[in-house]
Amino acid sequence: MNEIKVFAPATIANLNCGFDLLGLCLDGIGDEMIFRKSSEKGLQITKISGANLPYEVENNVAGVAALALLNEVDIDFGIEMEIHKKLKLGSGIGSSSASAAGAVFGINELLGKPFTKKELVNFAMKGEVVASGSEHADNVAPCLLGGFTLVTGYNPLEVIRIDAPKDLFAVVLHPHIEVKTSDSRAVLKPEVSLKNAITQTGNLGGFVAGLYTSDYDLISRSLKDVLVEPYRKHLIPGFDKVKNAALENGALGSGISGAGPSIFALCKQKENAQKVAIAMEKAFSDTKISYDVHISEINEEGTKLITN
Amino acid sequence: MNEIKVFAPATIANLNCGFDLLGLCLDGIGDEMIFRKSSEKGLQITKISGANLPYEVENNVAGVAALALLNEVDIDFGIEMEIHKKLKLGSGIGSSSASAAGAVFGINELLGKPFTKKELVNFAMKGEVVASGSEHADNVAPCLLGGFTLVTGYNPLEVIRIDAPKDLFAVVLHPHIEVKTSDSRAVLKPEVSLKNAITQTGNLGGFVAGLYTSDYDLISRSLKDVLVEPYRKHLIPGFDKVKNAALENGALGSGISGAGPSIFALCKQKENAQKVAIAMEKAFSDTKISYDVHISEINEEGTKLITN
Repeated sequence: MNEIKVFAPATIANLNCGFDLLGLCLDGIGDEMIFRKSSEKGLQITKISGANLPYEVENNVAGVAALALLNEVDIDFGIEMEIHKKLKLGSGIGSSSASAAGAVFGINELLGKPFTKKELVNFAMKGEVVASGSEHADNVAPCLLGGFTLVTGYNPLEVIRIDAPKDLFAVVLHPHIEVKTSDSRAVLKPEVSLKNAITQTGNLGGFVAGLYTSDYDLISRSLKDVLVEPYRKHLIPGFDKVKNAALENGALGSGISGAGPSIFALCKQKENAQKVAIAMEKAFSDTKISYDVHISEINEEGTKLITN
Repeated sequence: MNEIKVFAPATIANLNCGFDLLGLCLDGIGDEMIFRKSSEKGLQITKISGANLPYEVENNVAGVAALALLNEVDIDFGIEMEIHKKLKLGSGIGSSSASAAGAVFGINELLGKPFTKKELVNFAMKGEVVASGSEHADNVAPCLLGGFTLVTGYNPLEVIRIDAPKDLFAVVLHPHIEVKTSDSRAVLKPEVSLKNAITQTGNLGGFVAGLYTSDYDLISRSLKDVLVEPYRKHLIPGFDKVKNAALENGALGSGISGAGPSIFALCKQKENAQKVAIAMEKAFSDTKISYDVHISEINEEGTKLITN
């Protein structure tokens, strides 16, 4: 296996009640990356399309993640990496994480899988530092592992992977605006009420129970974020209208994807997701901001080889 | 069926990361109550043993809970209720809840089960007002339903019941002191840090996942309370010593039962629970305060008829 092609999917992090903890993996939308063994030692980024990103390995999310892995192995060949970005940077659906996850997954495959996917999360997190300034696994964990992931600790990394109920679909509306990370952080309150903390705790507990029992009503009741969304939503034009349109059309829940600006909804069954997507588009069109919309199953596989 | 005898078990509420939300049902320790149809209409408390409680139905936890149920039905006979308290009041293992749960369960049986156990939780909560001044289901839910219960909302009441992993045991050490409810409340901080709120949220999510997957390591990692225990523990003499003794001897986790003063530990397998109980006793004996200790399976059945 001298050349492989990898698909690194988009993800939703900060899923309502699971702010900073819970993510899910999308299907059908993601980056592609190509990996090749080469005689010239070391790691080289040989091609980048779809985004203006640095070719210097040390300044590139995928490069840094890849180096973190390569530091742990001893190989007698070099690696060439191509990055074909389909996910727009700053969209809130895990673009940088897809690069990091794709890089470590691809190289791991090329090396004959010395690491498990869970172990790869640790390397991919190193790439996230380039993009966001901190190691976090909210997006790289679902991108690599698929399904839902709950990241409950970092020293050591604790990732719980949970299968998605089979009829669950996600809708993502991506407004073509930039929400600055600094603004997303600045609006957060360092203190919250004990009451709200308990509400959030109960909602995540309920949501996790809903996933294990495929209880869509419970999932729906639990998909609420009382800690962060009330502050961050003001950074996204039309957020309340879009969310309400989703809920009024039968979505189980809706919220901010990642740190925004994307807005997601979870739905039971594809037909409802299609209906909800149309309603969200209609509600957002008032803003006159351009956007795109994706409808996706929950991707249970995560980052994978493209074999065709 | 003109006379029935009911067992209403002890419970642990405020289970670490599930403060105000999560409870479990104990086995082998609980109140007994007897119910009898009578020709004299209305509800009468005819006997109380084990505690100094009012015979006036309107001032008695069991009486008020029973009346809440009886207000919803139309019957042509009266009911006599005997209350035999085995659970000490103010112990932190749901003594008042057992009275309330036992009352509504017993009367429901006598009436031919017009209500489900989940519906009975609503009535039992009314009894809790007499004991604590507010309707809450933290103890009545696990007492009635057994296993673990997560109460995530009150309007309407939302109770999620989760089976316990089969090797899970609880140890409860009950110091014979009184912790005033007003003190337990006064030490709580109305504001908590966002960071701690997220930690607590992740821990409950992890704990629930641990229950569904019988993952004892995950249960253990998740059994932490960063919001309340750091403040309330100072009300319980020897708390840190007892908790540390439990953890050092292999307990999965340990914390304050209810609002205290009881201290609980969860353990994998009965042998470990026995070892942990001895260690907790030893650690607590330094305080010179008298105490009792219980070791219990998780009771999956909850409040039940005594048939022998």
